[in-house]
Amino acid sequence: MRRSERLVLLSKYLYEHPNEVISLNHFTEKFGAAKSSISEDLNIIKNAFLQTGQGEVTTISGAGGGACFRVKRPKEEILDFLEKLCKILSDEKRIIPGGYIYMTDIIFSPSYSSWLGEIFAQMFIDKDPTCVLTVETKGIPIALMTARALNVPLVVARRDSRVTEGPSVNISFVSGSSKTIHNMSLPKRALPENARVLIVDDFMKGGGTALGMSDLLEEFKAEVIGTAVLVATGSPQEKLIKEYTSLLILNEIDAQKGIIDIVVNTGSIDNI
Amino acid sequence: MRRSERLVLLSKYLYEHPNEVISLNHFTEKFGAAKSSISEDLNIIKNAFLQTGQGEVTTISGAGGGACFRVKRPKEEILDFLEKLCKILSDEKRIIPGGYIYMTDIIFSPSYSSWLGEIFAQMFIDKDPTCVLTVETKGIPIALMTARALNVPLVVARRDSRVTEGPSVNISFVSGSSKTIHNMSLPKRALPENARVLIVDDFMKGGGTALGMSDLLEEFKAEVIGTAVLVATGSPQEKLIKEYTSLLILNEIDAQKGIIDIVVNTGSIDNI
Repeated sequence: MRRSERLVLLSKYLYEHPNEVISLNHFTEKFGAAKSSISEDLNIIKNAFLQTGQGEVTTISGAGGGACFRVKRPKEEILDFLEKLCKILSDEKRIIPGGYIYMTDIIFSPSYSSWLGEIFAQMFIDKDPTCVLTVETKGIPIALMTARALNVPLVVARRDSRVTEGPSVNISFVSGSSKTIHNMSLPKRALPENARVLIVDDFMKGGGTALGMSDLLEEFKAEVIGTAVLVATGSPQEKLIKEYTSLLILNEIDAQKGIIDIVVNTGSIDNI
Repeated sequence: MRRSERLVLLSKYLYEHPNEVISLNHFTEKFGAAKSSISEDLNIIKNAFLQTGQGEVTTISGAGGGACFRVKRPKEEILDFLEKLCKILSDEKRIIPGGYIYMTDIIFSPSYSSWLGEIFAQMFIDKDPTCVLTVETKGIPIALMTARALNVPLVVARRDSRVTEGPSVNISFVSGSSKTIHNMSLPKRALPENARVLIVDDFMKGGGTALGMSDLLEEFKAEVIGTAVLVATGSPQEKLIKEYTSLLILNEIDAQKGIIDIVVNTGSIDNI
């Protein structure tokens, strides 16, 4: 196999296995090439990503050497993406009677959810999460794509416990906005001990759901390393949880004037 | 930028945009290279994939030319993956009281769900689906990854209709195994007209849920081009829907002996 072809397959393999250290041996066997050739290939890949800021390859040299690909995008590109997203979401056709905004198509879209998941991964990868937690249903796509980019398992809390999942831990929590009581359940075997958890969800109003997830994690003696949501409402400004990050802020929906005021939370990606 | 580096970034870009025709112009602008160079690059990528069966690149020549990457894996590799999966799933620790099998960790795992989604995409891409439909909750990860590989939207039916999604179509369906009545709901705006839909789910016993999804699609005047599930039970052999594909067959769970008999449905990937 020629170097050029090997580079194509190596790049694809790394991209398919984000945040995973892959040994040189794995590649030498896979491609029937010498370690020195693979090392040179990896350096070319590293430089290509470095030049464009599109991903980051770390190489580990020596006998146990290997390479690790991390999802990464330049800050301007992320800002640009989020601004386009705000424009799409502020279309007045998205206003639902009752003062809601229709976002389901965006949230369930594989291309948007993978972009958003990669942004969350980039924001929290240095905190070394060992799993991502969300609650059904609309948080799942973004949380799954975040977990994919971080190469960690996704854990999904259910609204009620299921017979098909064995013993579970159940908690009640109060919705921060409607003040109604809800349940949340997680199978006992779903979370390993000492988990470092990134909480991901699509939307936050009062923060009750995020607080519920955080309470649930306490029962598992897990540590919350961050809480990330796609959209948080501007009001109430005080949420039930103190520390969270939202990519977008929904300031207002004026159904009569047909205005959705949603903006990028530029502060959230400051330290990217 | 050197050819070798361009190859790395081109491969990544194609892999990030499966089943999407990308024009030569897009690449010439992105990389500041001549059309002839990009064409040569694409031929190298095409050959690399062709040699290994790891994906497929189609190039379209001429003025409106471009390239399209499709997810693809050799049949033996898919069989191998599914056999390993059966081994993992037949671990007796997975038996849940009541005769169920714990699969949640596999289903929510980003690496398994992306593999499985890519297999479904490979199986159904020639039927030209324009969207993927599943029902919450456990079908979502595999369905999302299928939609990603097919580059089509994912549509998720809910167990009940939500105020935040506007007017919806609701149907009742009878579970094929428990004979109980359930509801399923889809926002009216979720499906475009004349949709060609691939139904994806994690598990099928009686086939009632799949039949429910198919009935729901009838209300939207959409066409079902296929129904794909990860696991179907061996019994009952007659499902409520006639045409479906399952990758694995769950023959028996014997809780007393600690045996889970789950096998690859080799027939399902015959025409891959």
